[in-house]
Amino acid sequence: MLNYRNALGEMPSYDGVERDFRIKVNANESTMNLPPLVEERVSNRLGYLALNRYPNEEYDMLVEQIAKNFGVAKSQALLGSGSSEIIEKVFHAFGGAGKKVVYPQPSFSMYKIYAKAAESEGVPFDLDKKFDLDVDAFIKKIREVKADLAVICNPNNPTGNALAVAQIEEIAKSIDCALLLDEAYVEFYGHSAFGLIKKYPNLIVARTFSKAYGLAGARVGYMLAQEDVTRMINKTFMPYHMNVLSLAAADIVYQMRDEFVSRIQMTIAERQRIFEQLKKLRGVEVFPSQTNFILIRLEKAATLNEYLESLDIGVRHFSANAAGLKNCLRISIGTRIENDEVFAAIKNFLHKV
Amino acid sequence: MLNYRNALGEMPSYDGVERDFRIKVNANESTMNLPPLVEERVSNRLGYLALNRYPNEEYDMLVEQIAKNFGVAKSQALLGSGSSEIIEKVFHAFGGAGKKVVYPQPSFSMYKIYAKAAESEGVPFDLDKKFDLDVDAFIKKIREVKADLAVICNPNNPTGNALAVAQIEEIAKSIDCALLLDEAYVEFYGHSAFGLIKKYPNLIVARTFSKAYGLAGARVGYMLAQEDVTRMINKTFMPYHMNVLSLAAADIVYQMRDEFVSRIQMTIAERQRIFEQLKKLRGVEVFPSQTNFILIRLEKAATLNEYLESLDIGVRHFSANAAGLKNCLRISIGTRIENDEVFAAIKNFLHKV
Repeated sequence: MLNYRNALGEMPSYDGVERDFRIKVNANESTMNLPPLVEERVSNRLGYLALNRYPNEEYDMLVEQIAKNFGVAKSQALLGSGSSEIIEKVFHAFGGAGKKVVYPQPSFSMYKIYAKAAESEGVPFDLDKKFDLDVDAFIKKIREVKADLAVICNPNNPTGNALAVAQIEEIAKSIDCALLLDEAYVEFYGHSAFGLIKKYPNLIVARTFSKAYGLAGARVGYMLAQEDVTRMINKTFMPYHMNVLSLAAADIVYQMRDEFVSRIQMTIAERQRIFEQLKKLRGVEVFPSQTNFILIRLEKAATLNEYLESLDIGVRHFSANAAGLKNCLRISIGTRIENDEVFAAIKNFLHKV
Repeated sequence: MLNYRNALGEMPSYDGVERDFRIKVNANESTMNLPPLVEERVSNRLGYLALNRYPNEEYDMLVEQIAKNFGVAKSQALLGSGSSEIIEKVFHAFGGAGKKVVYPQPSFSMYKIYAKAAESEGVPFDLDKKFDLDVDAFIKKIREVKADLAVICNPNNPTGNALAVAQIEEIAKSIDCALLLDEAYVEFYGHSAFGLIKKYPNLIVARTFSKAYGLAGARVGYMLAQEDVTRMINKTFMPYHMNVLSLAAADIVYQMRDEFVSRIQMTIAERQRIFEQLKKLRGVEVFPSQTNFILIRLEKAATLNEYLESLDIGVRHFSANAAGLKNCLRISIGTRIENDEVFAAIKNFLHKV
């Protein structure tokens, strides 16, 4: 038997196999590929890259652009393979044996895994029945357990609700440890707390190109924080961890981000439209959302999920042991046509049972 | 002060800034971009990707292709962001407090860093004056320190020489711990030890698309091992760690790898030609190479490096504290024209001093 790292044995294995669906609204992706003009420019740019060279200036170009947009120094921004890698590395940087990380529950299911990967103790903090966070109790918990890292996903996945920026500030200023703010869905909410990094040296904001900017396949995310923090987190990244193709694609997308505004607005409008429709369905609890998905709860969630699968519609059904998510389904917002079809299918299911 | 992971403070920081050169032979890259036909197909394929979706089948497609080529099961191959990430993860998987990793010195300078990142103790083992590895003494050392991981780069970077497959086998069968064989340059040598993984459950072979296959910018590498091993190493990778653009590019390159054979042969022929020329220079020690670079040693290495830089030629000059590499320069093999110019510049320098 080889001498594997302690605790590696307990880590779950992932099998990358994901089923494809005719209507795929299970992963909070953008259901449309890039806007045609953006796609053309990305495609054009990719054709001119020197793939034979190690990535060089492309990382800097994108970081510079992002930093400029947020009005921070270049040294305050770092890139990762999706915000996933940013989160993984932040958990690692504040992790280790005896370290503790507090995160709300239910929230992004990977926090638990990242805590384990970092060999930290994950300390989940329960949201209430409406999935709201009791900010004072959360702060108390963080202090009580002497956490090394606290995490908030805002707006929250998979519940869809959001804290106000003032609440984020309340948390940031009331705790001594690092606070990772995962803003993967913030473009659908509109209220980022990134401005607080100037004031709070413990605040780290993570963002992604995977949701509003439709680049889930390219795996590009970034973080913003004070320079002391980025310098330390940067040590966890090995040289050349980002590839030139993804960097170039994200660079074009970021340059052309105005092209995404109408799509984001459409997603928000569709979310509201479908929310109102779902609310009218009897026996279905619908949670208000500030994201590109809606969470619903109904007794027959598992059966509905099977029914939708039979129509080749994929939504996210949570496993029985996902705390707080019993009988919940998460439905990403797609195009109007897709949303209508998903809604009609749900309605049809409810009439039949 | 935030509670960073112990030991993170000691980790070196990287600044990604690398200087560009008119003739860039400092990073063992392919100095040519992809063969035109391959480039066209890659470019075409990239244009058809659904960037908005999380990577799905592309990982599996490439793994399948690689496994098929090596005649192993799909479950015996894993992909990473360059063999760099493979090495990082293998070091992590066999690392941790109190763990030891033995590697020859001089070799790939990152082994030391990966050991530190994994919180292991790095145990360098000195090569002799000709940069040969005393296999018996190496085995003895591994046993003596009760290593958890041993690493060999074969052919070795930056020395260029190689162990015979029989020597690798001797090491694999004589030690109990994991043996990572970094075959980044093996295409320029021709003798892979991958066939040994059938026989030795402790052997892990890492390969890359960055050198012979000219995809350094895409960051794609892979490892081959027995299924028990890949299953454990796979746990260190988070879901969606690979992006769809790099996967698709590597997939096409691998399908069309015959197109690279003539380039690899040209590189080998050029290496031999330049080796013979360099050998004739007085005061220059030239080390035989099985790779796409040549290591030389001369008293005025630092001055020669400056002179080459003044001509906008970039070679690799090792820092004063790089053990065993005093006064050494590493020169990657470029095109015939580039090699001639580099050689002429070196000759010119020697005449002047």
